[in-house]
Amino acid sequence: MAQGLFISFEGVDGVGKSTQVKKLQEYFQSRGRRVITTREPGGTELGVQIRQMLLHGGDVDARAEALLYAADRAHHVATVIQPALDEASVVISDRYIDSSIAYQAGGRELTEDHICMLSQFATRDLWPKRTYILDLSYEQSRLRLTGEPDRLESAGELFFERTRQAFLDIAQADSKRCRVIDASQSIEEVWMQIQSDIEQLDLEDLQ
Amino acid sequence: MAQGLFISFEGVDGVGKSTQVKKLQEYFQSRGRRVITTREPGGTELGVQIRQMLLHGGDVDARAEALLYAADRAHHVATVIQPALDEASVVISDRYIDSSIAYQAGGRELTEDHICMLSQFATRDLWPKRTYILDLSYEQSRLRLTGEPDRLESAGELFFERTRQAFLDIAQADSKRCRVIDASQSIEEVWMQIQSDIEQLDLEDLQ
Repeated sequence: MAQGLFISFEGVDGVGKSTQVKKLQEYFQSRGRRVITTREPGGTELGVQIRQMLLHGGDVDARAEALLYAADRAHHVATVIQPALDEASVVISDRYIDSSIAYQAGGRELTEDHICMLSQFATRDLWPKRTYILDLSYEQSRLRLTGEPDRLESAGELFFERTRQAFLDIAQADSKRCRVIDASQSIEEVWMQIQSDIEQLDLEDLQ
Repeated sequence: MAQGLFISFEGVDGVGKSTQVKKLQEYFQSRGRRVITTREPGGTELGVQIRQMLLHGGDVDARAEALLYAADRAHHVATVIQPALDEASVVISDRYIDSSIAYQAGGRELTEDHICMLSQFATRDLWPKRTYILDLSYEQSRLRLTGEPDRLESAGELFFERTRQAFLDIAQADSKRCRVIDASQSIEEVWMQIQSDIEQLDLEDLQ
């Protein structure tokens, strides 16, 4: 019987994560796997409330914000991700721990150690088997982004580049788990790279 | 010039904390001190939202709950308690870190180390100068309690006694900060014990 498989997508806004999440979902479904796709923040009803508070509320202390994201993650893992893995499903999450590290530790005043400590507590140290980091420059990202700007999106180029670099640093520090994909390529080119990698990962699982 | 002074009240529901908070507030005001009284959870607007989610929402994972309380505390310290202390006010809080230890570590599945770790992160390790733990047996508590039962209040005698014992253990482990007060006494008797102690604490501050 197939094992549960946990995959996350990371990267700044506008790099095309949701498109690739959908393609990967269809890939696994076409092979007869049960798949759930989810997201952080906001992958649960509690998470939606937390997301509302964070994105559209007043000023929130940086440590309180980190704790709220961690609370969302704890509830998300306990009620969505872990139960699906226990039933041997593939779980694909749009953002996970790396986003907290990149946005909160990389982009604001908290250290990576703080965020890792909170996330390890929240998730009982559950990490994805594979993380795809979609990488794009600031200029290319602006061209792709649609919709209303929220607090993170309006923070400007400096914040963007700091966050982007944080994702690249994570990938370098955990090269076994992470794959950086050049998101300036076409949707199909990005997907072919992911598909090639995931076929390899599946083979490793069978060995 | 007077220094800021941070005092917390702890104990299970129905022991008369709010009455004593008010008396202590009046005591300091009569001596010309600026005083703010506050509470956890719910001492800020964000905290009120978190409190609503926790007390009247659906089932919340234990770790998510601990993180939400810690988020409330981080925001509370950053926006209410620390600014008041910086202006040399007396801050009196109805519940603080010890309640998280007693209710979450003492009463549910998390360890005291987990809760302390989260609270130290949330508060930048800010502890009260004095904590009054009002102690009452289950039977006496039932007689005093009014209003609608919430999730904590309806959890029964076993939970109550475990929580009560957790508060007593905290007091024993940190006897420099904590004072246990027998809350089966009259309101005036309880207050006289607190007043006597706080006068002593003020004297120590002046020395």
